Amino acid sequence: MKMISGGVCAAQGFSAGGIHMGVKTHATWKKDVALIVSDCTCSAAAVYTKNKVKAAHIYVDMDHLSNGTARAAVINSGNANACAPHGEENAIRMCAAVAKEVGCDVKDVVAASTGVIGQTLNIAAIEAGMPELYKSLSAGEDGSDAAAHAIMTTDTVIKEAAVETTVGGKTVRMGGIAKGSGMIHPNMGTMLCFLTTDCAISPAMIKEALLETVNVSFNRISVDGDTSTNDTCCVMANGMAGNAIITEKNADYAALVQALRELCIKLAIAMAADGEGAKHLITCTVNNAETEAKAETISKAVICSTLTKAAIFGCDANWGRVLCAMGYSGEDFDPTKVSVWFESKAGSILVCKDGEGLEFDEDLAKAILTEHDVVIRIDLGEGSESCTCWGCDITYDYIKINGDYRT
Amino acid sequence: MKMISGGVCAAQGFSAGGIHMGVKTHATWKKDVALIVSDCTCSAAAVYTKNKVKAAHIYVDMDHLSNGTARAAVINSGNANACAPHGEENAIRMCAAVAKEVGCDVKDVVAASTGVIGQTLNIAAIEAGMPELYKSLSAGEDGSDAAAHAIMTTDTVIKEAAVETTVGGKTVRMGGIAKGSGMIHPNMGTMLCFLTTDCAISPAMIKEALLETVNVSFNRISVDGDTSTNDTCCVMANGMAGNAIITEKNADYAALVQALRELCIKLAIAMAADGEGAKHLITCTVNNAETEAKAETISKAVICSTLTKAAIFGCDANWGRVLCAMGYSGEDFDPTKVSVWFESKAGSILVCKDGEGLEFDEDLAKAILTEHDVVIRIDLGEGSESCTCWGCDITYDYIKINGDYRT
Repeated sequence: MKMISGGVCAAQGFSAGGIHMGVKTHATWKKDVALIVSDCTCSAAAVYTKNKVKAAHIYVDMDHLSNGTARAAVINSGNANACAPHGEENAIRMCAAVAKEVGCDVKDVVAASTGVIGQTLNIAAIEAGMPELYKSLSAGEDGSDAAAHAIMTTDTVIKEAAVETTVGGKTVRMGGIAKGSGMIHPNMGTMLCFLTTDCAISPAMIKEALLETVNVSFNRISVDGDTSTNDTCCVMANGMAGNAIITEKNADYAALVQALRELCIKLAIAMAADGEGAKHLITCTVNNAETEAKAETISKAVICSTLTKAAIFGCDANWGRVLCAMGYSGEDFDPTKVSVWFESKAGSILVCKDGEGLEFDEDLAKAILTEHDVVIRIDLGEGSESCTCWGCDITYDYIKINGDYRT
Repeated sequence: MKMISGGVCAAQGFSAGGIHMGVKTHATWKKDVALIVSDCTCSAAAVYTKNKVKAAHIYVDMDHLSNGTARAAVINSGNANACAPHGEENAIRMCAAVAKEVGCDVKDVVAASTGVIGQTLNIAAIEAGMPELYKSLSAGEDGSDAAAHAIMTTDTVIKEAAVETTVGGKTVRMGGIAKGSGMIHPNMGTMLCFLTTDCAISPAMIKEALLETVNVSFNRISVDGDTSTNDTCCVMANGMAGNAIITEKNADYAALVQALRELCIKLAIAMAADGEGAKHLITCTVNNAETEAKAETISKAVICSTLTKAAIFGCDANWGRVLCAMGYSGEDFDPTKVSVWFESKAGSILVCKDGEGLEFDEDLAKAILTEHDVVIRIDLGEGSESCTCWGCDITYDYIKINGDYRT
């Protein structure tokens, strides 16, 4: 298995595009609708936010994906179509506009929205612009790039990735595009992420693969602890790689899941690193825990701690905040067995051993924390399980972006 | 019952003070040790943080209060004495230094610390300074003020309050001092808060009264979602009001609890309003819920939402973030029955009705949210229970304060 360049068009038989249609009214140069189309019908699955308040597209997609197949995905940015008048009606009209161009059933189209909550979606603009978007589709990297751009809100960079692996003797590719970058604290579902693969796999198995992958990738990142109303991760597998179709959890399934996991972790890390206003990617690894679940809960508490995030922003080796966050995580552990390191490419420094502070070189600590990618490594000293979660620091820019998000 | 001026010296027989001893090394003009002494032994009780990582003083206080009595309380700021070498030994030495001056048993002294985690407490400075602090004690308001100043860390104002009520035909007073202002997300225990009263009440009953009061006051505020390692709320009742001692849950007990609740809510609100860097006090009231517990969970989710806090900082009526926070609170409710208002002394505006956005006057909304005290009022439309929680906005100053807290 290897990472390759590209995104949703890396796999055979997928084309994509993105243009400005007028959903975003404040910047006419910003793309705001993306489209991904497969040459043939795909096995498809999606997971969604567990927020009680859900965007309209989620109810529509649950219906459209109930038979496990899809042909195309359409995504708008600039409007969440959540708590908005005519929400489901407009989500269905988005799908219908695509179905008309592609020549498929409206139920073989999935939709997603991201942006401001509570405002009516400009569906007329989307319907009017769909023929142009369909004509713009490309199976090259420019197609994926355009789609990745069109789903951005406060993201500063596009997020796309692709991998290649071998399944049943055939070369299989898969790729994806994703967007952050605020209201990111995925819970079971995740933020907007669209994945494509040419692997042949049944609807039931691609759904299973997606579920187990999301739990160890997107569900392990947080930008601000706010679980969105719109989180959606959708995968489409069109079978054009020609491998024997995967219908059970065999070696081929394992190979697919391994590739899917690498892909999703890469996209998840990109989302954390581009968290709103972020200056640092924070990786927190908890080692030697009794269980992976405990390591995950503690790691998540650390990356979600506002005080820890502020300390990393200030390049301040304030490990007391790490201990504090661990302590309120709800997990049971022995504080007197805990060790903590701060690490980056500038070095590694042990700041707390057996639950007590150590004298350490403040200059080295500062140098380590000045790097963009910072690791907080924790040893619980009680077992052999590990887990890593990813987050980012909280900055003046985060406050600025979110103090005036609607205008 | 009425609010009166003063703090921990409002009740008969209590004196207090605070001086600089050298625990805070960066500002010699800042008071850093406070002392509260009763003329006679008190019924006393305390509640503490539920953080798994606890400051050393908490273990010492649990022991010292196991018999339900106390004579004095000593508190230092500038050092949390948590995860620090010789933690419990130094907390006991703080108590012993007080016992020597007061002439009481070391076990009748409770201690508390607040400040940086993981550094060794300068106990020698505290022992050397105790005679001077004891000499400085005053039973007037200046005594309470000095103590309230000495427990401040990043607080910008002192927090003290007092009430007067009638219990068993006698005038009873109670008062308290408290400090915030970051790492505030009390869980069962609370931040540093010391309460005194001249009411006669048994140790068992004052403990019971404290527990039920803390749950509806300090446990309903949050500044940053970080539950401290040091949270401590302690009450001392010296009986000098001369009322018949309260030993059961009778009408006298009810009168005491009512007064204690008012006092604690006032101190809790002061803590939320002075959250680190805060420009706004945010009050969130959830009405017409099925249960008070549900109203509380939803209200807390709203005041803890980083995105909602950032929107209030920007005076932006972004109610979608309120709905979003409600949705991930974990509580079950029907989003299509929810209404949301923003309110302040500048007016009231309904922004969401039955789960959908309304057109509203943006200028009025801005004027309402520009006020310091802002209310988010939510109607769940499903029952008749209510709850109010208090928080604050997140600002550039919060990031600034916490990016460089240790230095």
